[in-house]
Formats: sequence, C-alpha cells, structure tokens
Amino acid sequence: MESGMSKAARLRGRLDVRRPALAMAAHNPLAAKLAAEAGFDAVWGSGFELSASYAVPDASILPMGTHLEMMRAMGEVQDAPVVADLDTGFGNAVNLAYAVPRYAAAGVAAVVIEDKTFPKDSSLRPGGRQELVPMAEFQGKVAAARDLGGGMLVVARTEALIAGLGLEEALRRGKAYAEAGADAVLVHSKQRTPDEILAFCRAWPGRVPLVLVPTSYPQLSFADIAALEKVGLVICGNHAVRAAVAAMRATFRRILAEGGIAGVEGEIATVGEIFDLQGDARLRALERDYLR
Amino acid sequence: MESGMSKAARLRGRLDVRRPALAMAAHNPLAAKLAAEAGFDAVWGSGFELSASYAVPDASILPMGTHLEMMRAMGEVQDAPVVADLDTGFGNAVNLAYAVPRYAAAGVAAVVIEDKTFPKDSSLRPGGRQELVPMAEFQGKVAAARDLGGGMLVVARTEALIAGLGLEEALRRGKAYAEAGADAVLVHSKQRTPDEILAFCRAWPGRVPLVLVPTSYPQLSFADIAALEKVGLVICGNHAVRAAVAAMRATFRRILAEGGIAGVEGEIATVGEIFDLQGDARLRALERDYLR
Amino acid sequence: MESGMSKAARLRGRLDVRRPALAMAAHNPLAAKLAAEAGFDAVWGSGFELSASYAVPDASILPMGTHLEMMRAMGEVQDAPVVADLDTGFGNAVNLAYAVPRYAAAGVAAVVIEDKTFPKDSSLRPGGRQELVPMAEFQGKVAAARDLGGGMLVVARTEALIAGLGLEEALRRGKAYAEAGADAVLVHSKQRTPDEILAFCRAWPGRVPLVLVPTSYPQLSFADIAALEKVGLVICGNHAVRAAVAAMRATFRRILAEGGIAGVEGEIATVGEIFDLQGDARLRALERDYLR
Amino acid sequence: MESGMSKAARLRGRLDVRRPALAMAAHNPLAAKLAAEAGFDAVWGSGFELSASYAVPDASILPMGTHLEMMRAMGEVQDAPVVADLDTGFGNAVNLAYAVPRYAAAGVAAVVIEDKTFPKDSSLRPGGRQELVPMAEFQGKVAAARDLGGGMLVVARTEALIAGLGLEEALRRGKAYAEAGADAVLVHSKQRTPDEILAFCRAWPGRVPLVLVPTSYPQLSFADIAALEKVGLVICGNHAVRAAVAAMRATFRRILAEGGIAGVEGEIATVGEIFDLQGDARLRALERDYLR
Repeated sequence: MESGMSKAARLRGRLDVRRPALAMAAHNPLAAKLAAEAGFDAVWGSGFELSASYAVPDASILPMGTHLEMMRAMGEVQDAPVVADLDTGFGNAVNLAYAVPRYAAAGVAAVVIEDKTFPKDSSLRPGGRQELVPMAEFQGKVAAARDLGGGMLVVARTEALIAGLGLEEALRRGKAYAEAGADAVLVHSKQRTPDEILAFCRAWPGRVPLVLVPTSYPQLSFADIAALEKVGLVICGNHAVRAAVAAMRATFRRILAEGGIAGVEGEIATVGEIFDLQGDARLRALERDYLR
Repeated sequence: MESGMSKAARLRGRLDVRRPALAMAAHNPLAAKLAAEAGFDAVWGSGFELSASYAVPDASILPMGTHLEMMRAMGEVQDAPVVADLDTGFGNAVNLAYAVPRYAAAGVAAVVIEDKTFPKDSSLRPGGRQELVPMAEFQGKVAAARDLGGGMLVVARTEALIAGLGLEEALRRGKAYAEAGADAVLVHSKQRTPDEILAFCRAWPGRVPLVLVPTSYPQLSFADIAALEKVGLVICGNHAVRAAVAAMRATFRRILAEGGIAGVEGEIATVGEIFDLQGDARLRALERDYLR
Repeated sequence: MESGMSKAARLRGRLDVRRPALAMAAHNPLAAKLAAEAGFDAVWGSGFELSASYAVPDASILPMGTHLEMMRAMGEVQDAPVVADLDTGFGNAVNLAYAVPRYAAAGVAAVVIEDKTFPKDSSLRPGGRQELVPMAEFQGKVAAARDLGGGMLVVARTEALIAGLGLEEALRRGKAYAEAGADAVLVHSKQRTPDEILAFCRAWPGRVPLVLVPTSYPQLSFADIAALEKVGLVICGNHAVRAAVAAMRATFRRILAEGGIAGVEGEIATVGEIFDLQGDARLRALERDYLR
Repeated sequence: MESGMSKAARLRGRLDVRRPALAMAAHNPLAAKLAAEAGFDAVWGSGFELSASYAVPDASILPMGTHLEMMRAMGEVQDAPVVADLDTGFGNAVNLAYAVPRYAAAGVAAVVIEDKTFPKDSSLRPGGRQELVPMAEFQGKVAAARDLGGGMLVVARTEALIAGLGLEEALRRGKAYAEAGADAVLVHSKQRTPDEILAFCRAWPGRVPLVLVPTSYPQLSFADIAALEKVGLVICGNHAVRAAVAAMRATFRRILAEGGIAGVEGEIATVGEIFDLQGDARLRALERDYLR
C-alpha cells in the first residue's frame, strides 16, 4: 500500500492551476473507491457527507474518532489521495496538534481546516452560526498542522465570505494563512452565482493555489476554473451522498409500490458488481495462496 | 427514544404470515432512515452491505465492533426495528453469548445467526466455502442468543440449501432450531428460481414463521410470499447499497464527462434534502431551547 | 444486566448527606470492577484517569467516542452505577444534547458537566487555562442534560474556585445550576487545605446535595464531610491510576534489577486472581450450557 | 514519530540470543510508556492483559478493533517497539491477511500468531480448550503474515506443549513455521518447572531465535535463558496488569477502611507524576508555540 507521505507528494504535484485536480466527496470507502475508479484525482473526506451518512447535523456532533477511522478505511481500499475535512480542528491549536499526526498515520494526504469557531456549523445551512476565530489564532492552527503533519498538505479554509465579512477580509485572511504555512487556501461561498468567488480568484496574488467547492454555483465549469489559473483543486463537495440518497429513495419507493424487487433489478448495480467492488479477485488470490 | 425491547415487541407483533413484514437492508444510519421513511417495517443491518460500504469482502473481515456500532447508530436516528445480521455469531456459542447482550444494549430488535462455520463466506458468492456446523452445535448458539438476548427476537438462518444439502436437511435443521428457541427461521437459497424455496415453505410445519431473502429469485413477489402463509418477514437484502453504487457511478462519470457539476443537479438530492435527513428541524429546536 | 435507569435511581437514593456515597475513579472496566468489589457505591468515569491511561493530557484530546465506549464497557462487567465525567460537554449545549442520550444508552447513571470553556484544561494543572463560560450559557447545558438524559442524574460542576473567582461567584453559579435542573452541584478546589471548600459547604443553602473531590485536601476525612450534612457524594478522583502507576513502576524496575520475574511473584496478583476478575466462573457456566 | 518499519528493524537487531531482548506486557499506552521508561526493549501488546483490563475472558471476546486501536495508541506515546499478540489471527489465513496490513499501519513492529483453533482459549487456564490447527494450515498463516506484514517481524507461537502433544511435535511445528517464514518461534509451556522448555531449547536447531514467556516457571532467570543461546526475546507476559490489580485492590480497601484518602498518599504516584506521564512538558511546548 502506498504511504500517506507518498500520496501527499503525488497530490502536491497535481495542484496545477492550469489543470486543477478534481476531488469527489465520499462518506465511506466504497464511495472513495468509486470516485477513484471514475478518475477523480483525490477523495474528499467530507465531514458533511459523513455526518449525513450518520443522519446527524454537520455541527461537530460526530466524534473525531469516527471521522479519523473512516479516513483510514478509505485509504486502505483505494489509492487516490484522501483530503481530510478536519472542520475547525477539534478545538484549539493544541487539540489540532494532537489530531494531525494521527491523521498522517491514517494515510491521509492533506488536511483542510477552517477558520470558524468550534463547534462548527455547516457553511451552507440557512441561518447557521458563522463566527470566525481571530486571524492570528488560526495562523497558529495552520502552523501546528504544517509542523506536525508529517508532510501532509495543509489547506487553510477561510469562511470570511460565508460569514459576510467581504472580499478584503477574505483576501487578508487567505494571505495570512499562506504566510503561516498553508499549502493552499480554500475559499468558500454560498452565493448562487460565482461572482464573489471569481472576484476573489482574480484578486488572489497566487502565492499558493486556491481550492474551490462550487456546490452553490454549479454553473462554473472546471474549464472556467482552469482559465483563472489560480485554482489547484476543485472539490465536488457532496455529490456522492446526494446521488446515493436520490437512488435509495427511488429504489425503496419503487419496491414498495411494486410489491417486489423484480422491477428495480435493471436500475441498480448487480450483486456481482458489488462482489467486484469488495475486492473479490484479491480475496480469491489470498484463498489460493494461503488457505491450506 | 423507544427502547430496543419495545421495538422487539413491535417487530414480533408484525411477523404476520398473512401479511409479512418487509425489511430493507441498510449500510449506514442514513439508509436506515430512508428505509423507515419509505415505509419498510424493519431495517436489515446487513453484514453484506456493511462490508460492501467498506469495500471489503463479506467474509468476517470487518471486526464485530464496526458492525455493532453501526447497528447502534442506526437505532439512534430512526424508529424502525433493526434486525442485526450477526453472520455466524463471531465464533462459537460462548463468543455469541458475550456478543448478544451488547447487541441488545445497542437497541437492536432481532438478531440473525447462521449455521455456517466461522469465518463465514458470502452465501451468493460463486464458488464460496459453504460449510455448516453440526446441528446440535448451532442449537447451542440459538439457545445462547435466546437466553441472553434480553428479549430480542432470534432468527436462525440455515444455509443447508446454499450448501447443497437438500430440502430434507434444511427442514430438519429449521425444525431443530425452532425447538432450540428460535423465533423465526430464515432459509436462504441461491437458485435463480423460487422452486426450492417454495418447496421448503410448503413443507414447513409452521411452528414459527419463516424469513426469506429473495435476492436470487426476485420474480417472487411479496403477494406470492404472503399467499404461502408461512413467511413472517421478507428481507430485501442488498438493495440499498446496490442502488447507491449505481447512482454514484453514474453521477461521478457524468461530472467528469461534462466537466462540471451543473448537469447532475437535477438528478441527485438537493443539499436541503440532506439537511432535512440530518435532522435540521431537531437541531433548530435544540438551538432555540438550549443555546443561551 | 441492570439498566442504566435503574442504576440512576439507585444512585439517587444513595445521595444521603448524612452518609455520603463514595465513588472511586476508574480508567477501565477492571478498575471499575475492583472498585465495586471493594465496596464503593459508584464508579467515577474519570476523564483525567482515562487520559492518563492513554498517556495524553486531560485537555479534550481523547475523542468523545473513546470515553463513551469505556463508560459502556464499565457498566457491562459490574453493577455499581457509573458517574461519567463529560468535561465541558464536548462543545456547546447542542453538542451536549446529542451526547447525553448516547451516554444514557451506554448505561451511565449520572453525568458531570463543568462550566469551563471547551477545550478543557485539567483543573489541578499548575498554570492551566481556567476560563468559565457565562452562567446562563451553562444553565442551558444543564437543562439540555436534564431534559435529554433519560433519567440520568445531572451533576453541575463549577470551577469558579479553581478559576479564582471567589466564594460568592461559586455559590451564585451553584445555585443557578440547581435552579436549571442539576441534581447535585460539584464544587472543585485546588487549595491544599479544605478551608475554601468548608466555607462553601457551610454557605450552601442545601437545596440539592453537593459533590466533593478531595484530591488536593486529602486530610478531610469522609466522616468530616458527613458531618457537614451537605455533601451527597465524595469522589476519589484519581486513585486507581495513581495506585496502578506506582505499582507498575516498582514491578518493572524490580524485574529488570533482579534479572527475572521470580522476585515480584509475591507482590502482584496471581494469574488465578486475574482469571477470576475476567469472569472465569461465568465463562465456565456458558461453556457448560451452550457449547455442544 | 519513528515508523513501525523502523521499529521492526530495530527489534530485529535486538533479537540477540546471547543477550535476549526483554518485553513487558501492557494493557494500555500508560503501561507501555512505563515499560519503555523502565528500560524494557519492547512492549508486549498482550491479549490476556487487554482482556483483563476489560474484565472479560481471553477467549476471542474482545473484537479485533479494540486490540488494534490499543496497539496504535501504545505506539503513539512511546518509542519501544510494540509486539502485538494476534492470538489465532482472527479466523483463517484470509482473515489474517486482511488484519496484518492494518497492524503494520498501526505502527506495530512484530506480530505473534498461535497455532490454536479460533476462538482461542487462554493457554494457562485450567481445563481450557487447547486444540491446534493442522500444521500446514498454520504455515499458510505464517506465510500470509510474512508476505503482507510490510516488514513486521512474524513470531509463530506453537501451543503444542500446552496441548500436551509433546516435545517432538513442538519441535516439528517450530521448524515448519520457521520454514514458512517466521522470524522467531515462541514456544509456550504451563509446567511449573522449566524442564520442558529447557529440553525444547536445547533441541532447537537454532535457525531462528526462540521466544519465551516464563509466567509458569518464573524461577528461570534472564541469565539462565541467555546461557541457552537460543532465545532472542523474553516476554514478561502479564506483570503489568497483575501489579496494577494488587495495588488498586490494596488502595481501594485502605481508603474504605481508613475513611479517607490521606493514608494512601504516600504509597501511590503523585498527581504531578501523572501529569508528567501525560506529556505535560510537550503540552506546554505546544501551547507556547501554537496558541495565539
């Protein structure tokens, strides 16, 4: 199995602002494997998706251990680098300092931390709390993640636009985080048009690449983003769980409506496909080699 | 939150051979909640689905703790009774005796144990190992589960047909397990037609209800099953993960093919739907009542 | 197994200010079982001891899941009620609202929450951060724990004396927490004499019983405390891990110094004693009853 | 943090039959740290001690995840190589094949697997089941551990003497396991004198070093063992938990008998010592460097 450090190096090499890397969200190792097989460059170890898969709010409800173990499990079954969503870092810079080496040991290639207060609230949630910690305090978190992360990329995420603090504050924070050692800066927006994000990208001095999560402004294509020559990574933030929910809902309803499972057979994966995704070929090889 | 014991009683009351209860498989609490919302009577805490969600074979690879915690989490966010798939019971009857009270404490309403040897192999896997433990040994497991299960239903699953031992042996085992205290008998088949299962059902003396998992013979409708007047529960064994896989695959491919996320928006659940499933209404109530 | 609710009721009945209940700290189920066997009325599910057993600071470093699972395991092997140390409650009142039912389901009889900011710092640590949240904010936490705790006792711990805010503020907070629904108020002090605590106890109006943790002022005997007729529970906060550390250190050194294990045999528990504590008698009964 | 691979190499270099390495059992990271501080060369990640710390029998009751996470946590807080006790390997060779890379990723330096059937029974337990798997089957497990262990040492433990199969069978199995790729062979005995073990050691051809666990025959000193020039590692198999139990028992009883905690103060570790073991110095450094 490729080491987390090697995956981090590979991801670092892929942060090409002329051809941004693409990450897909995952909430379990299966989604991660499907994302890698589809051709995504990285797996987004999304706190939102994981919380959704547990049917609890994305508000620091799930304990850190649940997230950490899921990141580890994602890396055990596929090779795309895992970008772990650490929310606000599980407390202050000291808490983060203890968490970061554990993520590195879990084979994670990059961590994303955001400058909101703990406990976090989901950025896209209408009416949610969106308070930021002081900039210097967050620089301390960035420094801790960089110093103790064993080579993992550190992505500093500013929620200044989400919090309504404006472009200047977002740029000021982004730059400060890069100075503190961030390898990339994620800037998030919940506006329904990309104008705010485009303004930020154009004004960004470009010292480190940006990261975008275009959930709220899906009309911005990957080609549009590449044309900016500022963004190294685009994260599809929640499309795995949203796809899964729609399909499970439709399948469940249809089975009940039709009074049987025959009708959905043609629309869902076959049992054989699931065996394949479970690594049946590897299982057979192990049985052949070691069962005596 | 309704107790596991109360859910067990509710499920027991629903095992009506004239109108069998319907269970849908789930691999995480989100799938469990969707199954309950769709109207299924129970959630099937499937080892196959859970293994698939971790992209590992369904061959006693995932540690018991992972399955146990997932059952607990499923019960924390929705009210349909959880029927836990304990495979072969994690070892011998003593191992099962230690496991069963932990499942009861996790709020589980019923446990299913199967008469294969540990470690198990997936029943539908082509060429898999399908060895059974002696009948008396498995009766010991049934008795342990019944005595120590704190009121959970005990479903004894015989793999005699899967193992190719024939109808007589399947019936002999099924009756012996009912005598040992099983509340229901699950009989599994991987034939592509329901003939084998229909013969079993017709020959079943009916002392306890049967449980069917019609994955291999989907043409048998729920009405067909009800007409047998022998089956108390029908389990849709793997349709949640199969639906999710097909949808994630299609969504991931389309996003890459189209170079953006705009195209899939109409086909996947909205972010707002995910907030709802995460219990946003409850979160708002808690914020209102307790945040000061 | 006795339910958590029943244990909570039993503990409630034991909070007798004329003969205070005694709790011993534990960092694993073995220590909990030894405490119960020795005759303690309750087990203190100490965050300090658990952190120490993991050799990490008691500063919100261990994820909640680790603590929760240890509380559950403690209740699985012995019957003394477990009093769980929830520190500051894992975030704000909403985070606590999600945590509390999970502790109840783990069979915990009482939860203790303290009015410091998250992440906590150990109360007795020289030079530690000891900042309190506003009183009203903490009342919200108390109310959440009471409303959602399924009958668990709620102990509100004020760190006002630890934070140097004085007797009046400590009393003001203690009363406010009792008004918000706390079943008992824990008042902590790190002074080397009991004067501060005695003053608090004497001034306490006595609406709910107090809880003391006399680590810093060991000279105050249980009889002295009973004579106050204000204290319902005395917690020996860290004596399990401190005893274990001293003994392991001495044993390890002696084995190395003597070049063999013969010398320590007479000073440590026998292997047979360990078998007994592991429940060997129950194991034999299970083997007899269920292994066929 | 030193990698597991590097620790494995270090341990390999320490397996000197003229001066055997010494390992001390641990049931939590604290015990592991104390063992390393005392000067032991390695930490024995004992299934017996861990089971004892949970007050459950050492009979494959604790799920693998609990053991795996404890091994990881032991390696996070101290640098002595961790020798993980994998019992029978959690099932067959395929189950072991999936487990072994996870132990390697947890930073473990060596794994010990034994040739008993799953579920295991404790070797020293009077009247326990002590059945062995066929020799060839166990060679398959050894090969799987060697091939998939990422450089971890593989120690093959034969229970032939425990099972009463005699010296010849023990030697035959030991040699076969070395041929299958074991780096060392652990031979266990429950005789109260070392005669049986001494006979084995003398007859051992010496292709790979032996490992001894002298719990039952403590009179055999480390110097005696070194004089055999066959043994590379001596494991003190359960002295941490036995020391802890005796001390906690005595402390608990004394506190209750004396009616207060003053009397035990001089016999147990100070709170300051616990702070030190929790890494207070490192915590202070982190606070200084990153809290802003």
